[in-house]
Amino acid sequence: MSTFRTEHDFLGEKQLPNDCYYGVQTLRAKENFDITGIPISNEPLFIKAFGYVKKAAALANKELGVLDAKKADAIVFACDKLIKGEFVDQFISDMIQGGAGTSTNMNANEVIANVGLEHLGYKKGDYDHLHPNNHVNLSQSTNDAYPTAFRIALYLKIDEFADALEQLQKAFYKKGKEFSNVLKMGRTQLQDAVPMTLGQEFNAFATTLGEDVLRIREAEKLITEVNMGATAIGTGVNAPAGYAELCVKHLAKISKIPVVLAADLIEATYDTGAFVQLSGTLKRSAIKLSKICNDLRLLSSGPRCGLGEINLPPMQPGSSIMPGKVNPVIPEVVNQTCFYVIGADLTVTMAAEAGQLQLNVMEPVIGFALFTSLEYITKACNTLREKCVAGITANAAYTKQQVMQSIGIVTQLNPIIGYEESAAIAKEALKTGKSVHDIAVKEKKLITQAKWDEIYSIENLIHPKFITQ
Amino acid sequence: MSTFRTEHDFLGEKQLPNDCYYGVQTLRAKENFDITGIPISNEPLFIKAFGYVKKAAALANKELGVLDAKKADAIVFACDKLIKGEFVDQFISDMIQGGAGTSTNMNANEVIANVGLEHLGYKKGDYDHLHPNNHVNLSQSTNDAYPTAFRIALYLKIDEFADALEQLQKAFYKKGKEFSNVLKMGRTQLQDAVPMTLGQEFNAFATTLGEDVLRIREAEKLITEVNMGATAIGTGVNAPAGYAELCVKHLAKISKIPVVLAADLIEATYDTGAFVQLSGTLKRSAIKLSKICNDLRLLSSGPRCGLGEINLPPMQPGSSIMPGKVNPVIPEVVNQTCFYVIGADLTVTMAAEAGQLQLNVMEPVIGFALFTSLEYITKACNTLREKCVAGITANAAYTKQQVMQSIGIVTQLNPIIGYEESAAIAKEALKTGKSVHDIAVKEKKLITQAKWDEIYSIENLIHPKFITQ
Amino acid sequence: MSTFRTEHDFLGEKQLPNDCYYGVQTLRAKENFDITGIPISNEPLFIKAFGYVKKAAALANKELGVLDAKKADAIVFACDKLIKGEFVDQFISDMIQGGAGTSTNMNANEVIANVGLEHLGYKKGDYDHLHPNNHVNLSQSTNDAYPTAFRIALYLKIDEFADALEQLQKAFYKKGKEFSNVLKMGRTQLQDAVPMTLGQEFNAFATTLGEDVLRIREAEKLITEVNMGATAIGTGVNAPAGYAELCVKHLAKISKIPVVLAADLIEATYDTGAFVQLSGTLKRSAIKLSKICNDLRLLSSGPRCGLGEINLPPMQPGSSIMPGKVNPVIPEVVNQTCFYVIGADLTVTMAAEAGQLQLNVMEPVIGFALFTSLEYITKACNTLREKCVAGITANAAYTKQQVMQSIGIVTQLNPIIGYEESAAIAKEALKTGKSVHDIAVKEKKLITQAKWDEIYSIENLIHPKFITQ
Amino acid sequence: MSTFRTEHDFLGEKQLPNDCYYGVQTLRAKENFDITGIPISNEPLFIKAFGYVKKAAALANKELGVLDAKKADAIVFACDKLIKGEFVDQFISDMIQGGAGTSTNMNANEVIANVGLEHLGYKKGDYDHLHPNNHVNLSQSTNDAYPTAFRIALYLKIDEFADALEQLQKAFYKKGKEFSNVLKMGRTQLQDAVPMTLGQEFNAFATTLGEDVLRIREAEKLITEVNMGATAIGTGVNAPAGYAELCVKHLAKISKIPVVLAADLIEATYDTGAFVQLSGTLKRSAIKLSKICNDLRLLSSGPRCGLGEINLPPMQPGSSIMPGKVNPVIPEVVNQTCFYVIGADLTVTMAAEAGQLQLNVMEPVIGFALFTSLEYITKACNTLREKCVAGITANAAYTKQQVMQSIGIVTQLNPIIGYEESAAIAKEALKTGKSVHDIAVKEKKLITQAKWDEIYSIENLIHPKFITQ
Repeated sequence: MSTFRTEHDFLGEKQLPNDCYYGVQTLRAKENFDITGIPISNEPLFIKAFGYVKKAAALANKELGVLDAKKADAIVFACDKLIKGEFVDQFISDMIQGGAGTSTNMNANEVIANVGLEHLGYKKGDYDHLHPNNHVNLSQSTNDAYPTAFRIALYLKIDEFADALEQLQKAFYKKGKEFSNVLKMGRTQLQDAVPMTLGQEFNAFATTLGEDVLRIREAEKLITEVNMGATAIGTGVNAPAGYAELCVKHLAKISKIPVVLAADLIEATYDTGAFVQLSGTLKRSAIKLSKICNDLRLLSSGPRCGLGEINLPPMQPGSSIMPGKVNPVIPEVVNQTCFYVIGADLTVTMAAEAGQLQLNVMEPVIGFALFTSLEYITKACNTLREKCVAGITANAAYTKQQVMQSIGIVTQLNPIIGYEESAAIAKEALKTGKSVHDIAVKEKKLITQAKWDEIYSIENLIHPKFITQ
Repeated sequence: MSTFRTEHDFLGEKQLPNDCYYGVQTLRAKENFDITGIPISNEPLFIKAFGYVKKAAALANKELGVLDAKKADAIVFACDKLIKGEFVDQFISDMIQGGAGTSTNMNANEVIANVGLEHLGYKKGDYDHLHPNNHVNLSQSTNDAYPTAFRIALYLKIDEFADALEQLQKAFYKKGKEFSNVLKMGRTQLQDAVPMTLGQEFNAFATTLGEDVLRIREAEKLITEVNMGATAIGTGVNAPAGYAELCVKHLAKISKIPVVLAADLIEATYDTGAFVQLSGTLKRSAIKLSKICNDLRLLSSGPRCGLGEINLPPMQPGSSIMPGKVNPVIPEVVNQTCFYVIGADLTVTMAAEAGQLQLNVMEPVIGFALFTSLEYITKACNTLREKCVAGITANAAYTKQQVMQSIGIVTQLNPIIGYEESAAIAKEALKTGKSVHDIAVKEKKLITQAKWDEIYSIENLIHPKFITQ
Repeated sequence: MSTFRTEHDFLGEKQLPNDCYYGVQTLRAKENFDITGIPISNEPLFIKAFGYVKKAAALANKELGVLDAKKADAIVFACDKLIKGEFVDQFISDMIQGGAGTSTNMNANEVIANVGLEHLGYKKGDYDHLHPNNHVNLSQSTNDAYPTAFRIALYLKIDEFADALEQLQKAFYKKGKEFSNVLKMGRTQLQDAVPMTLGQEFNAFATTLGEDVLRIREAEKLITEVNMGATAIGTGVNAPAGYAELCVKHLAKISKIPVVLAADLIEATYDTGAFVQLSGTLKRSAIKLSKICNDLRLLSSGPRCGLGEINLPPMQPGSSIMPGKVNPVIPEVVNQTCFYVIGADLTVTMAAEAGQLQLNVMEPVIGFALFTSLEYITKACNTLREKCVAGITANAAYTKQQVMQSIGIVTQLNPIIGYEESAAIAKEALKTGKSVHDIAVKEKKLITQAKWDEIYSIENLIHPKFITQ
Repeated sequence: MSTFRTEHDFLGEKQLPNDCYYGVQTLRAKENFDITGIPISNEPLFIKAFGYVKKAAALANKELGVLDAKKADAIVFACDKLIKGEFVDQFISDMIQGGAGTSTNMNANEVIANVGLEHLGYKKGDYDHLHPNNHVNLSQSTNDAYPTAFRIALYLKIDEFADALEQLQKAFYKKGKEFSNVLKMGRTQLQDAVPMTLGQEFNAFATTLGEDVLRIREAEKLITEVNMGATAIGTGVNAPAGYAELCVKHLAKISKIPVVLAADLIEATYDTGAFVQLSGTLKRSAIKLSKICNDLRLLSSGPRCGLGEINLPPMQPGSSIMPGKVNPVIPEVVNQTCFYVIGADLTVTMAAEAGQLQLNVMEPVIGFALFTSLEYITKACNTLREKCVAGITANAAYTKQQVMQSIGIVTQLNPIIGYEESAAIAKEALKTGKSVHDIAVKEKKLITQAKWDEIYSIENLIHPKFITQ
């Protein structure tokens, strides 16, 4: 028995290994697109999403009487396999591909057809009994099935990211609480400003990430608008009446994702606005995470010639030449991941702008950019939480001492002695190296020691009251 | 009488022309920052916003008893002048400046002080009676006053943009209605696909922009969160108890903008998330506008060797050498504006990521990027609407003829004769130059003329029904 | 016998599978950095480059008497294995990693040490006899060894890209020659301009890519400047006198790459200018390739409702629903690859800007971005050449007919009848649908038929002479 | 006498103020393009460049006998006025404009025509005697005249930037020399590494900028390739034989810029590669300047809770609330300028990619981006040099003390006691707070005091020798 079967499309015939479930069009795609070497199988959630989409379409087609029950059931059988995670290795098209996703859609159609054919007792490739285009793809086009599956996969991945972000937020809040009495110098423009607590600083990290959880959820909602039933360009050509609504109803039920039908299917078929919004939101998170990691690296600089306020847990020897050096490797890897995400947003931008007329043919690279961004940034959040934030400790004695010897605390004297007098003290302190206390209380006798003690109590430094003469 | 007065700060003395209302610190800023040559006065709404902020602060300070009524009233008097648009020319600091906006804030403080001083009967520079720092800036820092004014100015400009976008949307809807019976070829991947109407195409432009109006309004809402009362780093040092809430209440009332106090003032003082979100949303709009303009240019290409579906109103001779050439100059200028906005978003990205510790010192360039982006894109929307969209006409006879001679209409036969048979017809039509009609009806006799007429009626091409044998 | 061995570093002990050649620090890196899932082994040329670097260092150390010959020879033995492509699977660190490449450098040090140890008859992990830090990394730091290996790997990959670009250029030139007599309409701003040949158009594609080969070679040259001997920060601490020069001499000889020692090792240790330049040049090539692919898609648009000037070879069925549709999938995949490269350039930009003080710790993500960009764009060039350009055909009869019926040819009449009269003819042609010929020769009798024939001969349209009355 | 004159083009008539030298097409442009509000007159060098270009064309036309001497001389007369800087205010088109620069080119043609007309004794608008298109623009198209003038203007601006960069480089070298004996801690990954001098650090700043001067000069060279004689699309239609070479020869002579004629005029007419390269190089410089400014801000952080190694000259009071605070405002404004330049590079990227077929219609926004980038970054370099670098002082005693108390100096012991023993010392020092000296010499007695003194002499710390036991 031959180990190859022959399939054909309108460009001609090709030989396929008999054990493979994909067909001739997938094979052409494999040959045509050799760019990243990263196949669709790298995104199992995308394949699962195709299982949802094709199942919903088959059910709607059956219900509307345009697909006979036997064929529909075979398609559903195959889709359930995909949904369970089977046949992932049959998805061999490159992540970056021409053709607006036709290759990925046909890959799904062919795998489903062949799994279905075997289930029906036929041989793979015997498409008269279950055809990738005529049956699996019935009432569909790449231009609705592909973006819908893409959106479902994104939804699932966004969920993972939002969870990771929330957990990271909690880890920062926990540290914020732990550090709530650690007095330290606040800094603006890298210059000593006024006192605060390390707890306030870590709480703020939590706050800022918490806002992004909200933004991510907003972006997720935009992703739920799908265009099933649009077929080729949104006019719904070749889809039976009522199909769009019915298909989306099934899809929501099967996937448990609140997908809704877009109001304007012409627009929905080419529009990439939701991807741009999602990418922009990921970029926002990347900017914030990068800023936080910059701060963590700065605050932990030293050990003796830096700011030295906090200690990150040592994760690995930091140098192949400098003994004992421990580097902030976890924030560093997060920074770099953020730069990747920011770069990927530009890829999405370029691709979105390149849409023409009734379709944006660049969706595959948008998919590649968003899938990898979500994957990497989710992992980066988890890495930062587990391997860094959770183990951070404070050098509380040192930071308190820094505050008390600072010039910045002169600000607290403004309401009593005025900005200009305070500025004069600051200037003298800087010039002579003396402390603000000595100049204000001892030399210039501008305030009493008692007043000084009131103003510069830990409690008042952390929660400043408005104290006047 | 001398035409100059002398002012000093803790760096020393400077001479100022007697007729200027700004003071020594503004002058230093002018000397220090010579980058764009574009002064703050270029953004009158920013100055107006400072009027709101300083007035709200004065009222709160007065109410809390930390500022005497006479001084407070003088500040309010001066702020009302700024709100009315007076003294704009006194804002001379460069738009891009170091110091996190201190120069702009001090420019406002100094102008307000001097206007107030004159109102009180004193001479400009006689700061003992009304001091830029001690009184105008009382209970404030650059780090809360500046970003609050910035947000208010953005809010006002976002409003203008959203309005322009909505009007453009309506213009497209109007054209969509006008073109609702213009049959034309839909295209995916620049290849002939299936028929549609020009009306559907223009409606989709309206739909896609309408979604952006919603996104813009969401971004606008984020902008309303302000940090008055945070002072230097968010701890509220030197602000009296209750000041933050009171000041924001006054600010909302005076400006009629629904500003709210941020929950975490430490975070709010350095966070640029709302600016990033706004910029990302502007970028999204720019991407969509650019795509639409690309389409308009493509659809109007010709007049004889292009797609030739629509005519843009001629705005100017198109060439210094080619007689009679008329170019799509309006979409072109919109495309370019969009590229500016997309570039400015990267500036915002870089600046936002560069925030360190308790402040983002790069806010002035974020301001420059957002102010110019909003200004240019608003004007671009208005230009596109008035000088292009409103005057577009369709070549309906030509586009209908194109549809009927196309191969793409074979898609409609799928449900009757199957994908593979349709593909064979398509292939033959392409090879021989024959029409789909002649091959399907006359030669292969796959369907009757009556069925053909049913399928290819204008009505069915525009609103396809699912027709089977 | 145990299948595990124990190794330690100053953070403690870890168990390693006995058959692995990497050691404790590599294992920590593997655990610490789980971001992309793409290991260093994905870039075999990077591992080869480490073979070159470590071999050159060992030879220099031996020659300078700081490393005994037996150990040096064992290192050289191991390096030769890496150079031959062995042990690639032992490089398990993630491509994006914290620590400025220390993990990759230590991965190399550990694999080389263990391969060397076995060669010397010792067991893996028996580092007293050959130590990853003390011997393999002798006179080096991550901060010189890593960027040097990175540069060598880039050099090798740049070579591949430049070759691909040159071949693509030749393919376009070949087509340019083939199409040298195909008359067609030139277009500016998508509007019909003046006649040209398709050959000129394809030659220009070749020209523009040829210029990029030169730019790529310039960027490649910057990459050859290495900083061996800099050690930790460029002061050369712990490297013997004369080591830097000697090591680089060996490196050039071994690798056959004209590497040179940087003049200022402090600067060379942190500077990423050469990577930025390379990335910018790749971006330039991406922009050009994208523009060319945009043109190819536009020129081949149709088949009946587009420009229809050329035909791209059909590579796969273009639609799951539209029979016979063939799409420009190869240019499309190239466009998308270009967008990836442009996005990656932003990643490089962000990472380069983030360098601080004596080191740029973000080099790993720069590596990831450049390695993938070079890989993808090289493959995209080859794909475009083989699967598209080589098979392009022209619709010469159609394009000639388009020219003769165009209005644009009126430009040729300017020198005879003036710009304003020409414009009047153009206007009338556009309004009435008449041809330029009929208006100019028959109606207005502005020129004779003989003059017309002279001006509009094919020869004169392709190589216009300056013809006056 | 009427204060208005009437002009017409093929779209109809318009009234123009009699005193303006621009004409009807310029007026249309002014009305059509209201985007930035920044007119061409903002770039006097661009107008000067048009003077060069139009003069060269007139001379070539005259010499070839296609333009009579009287008209040619009038054009030359007018061009010389532009070259001298006169009539700048007559250039009113918006910097961002549709039409590929036609409006700017026509603005130049019209101003030159009218200045010439008056010189000849005619009235403005009396174009029969000197016509903007037929005479001033003779043998030209916007598509060659505009990019050529653009390149010449860029060349002049690049020169200014390169000079500013060179002067900045020299300022850093001077400081490097001044600080050549200031011992300080080198840092990698913000962690203490090994000692170096502040002089080495400042020299490296100079080195890295020096490399960019070379890159800028390379990019400048690419800019000198012009396409005069290409006319509309590069075929040279309507230009007399020999014109291209002759015109470029004149242009080089008049402008004293070594312009050369592009080899492939079809390619040269649409290609924006040189602009992309220039923009990429500016981005590279921006990245480097930003990194340097980041370092300056970091090194000067404090005054008491930061690194405190250097002092930047105080330029203005740093805070409206914190007395005595002085901020690094100059590096800050440079950082922001760099972010602008990086954003503008993206604008250039988008615009360059958007070129289609025989022209890139987006050149005006490329111009806007490059002109502003060059202007701002040049000013930023000068500002940084004059107002910051020149006045930087070092805290030499403090930085030396930091080095001696650091743990990082243990690296110097590697060659004597091995990496692992050194790591153990480092670990203990970190844990106990003891000095490396006390542990190594006193407690563990691993080296003698004499050896210690040899290794840790200032001389050896600055120029480390390889010292073994």
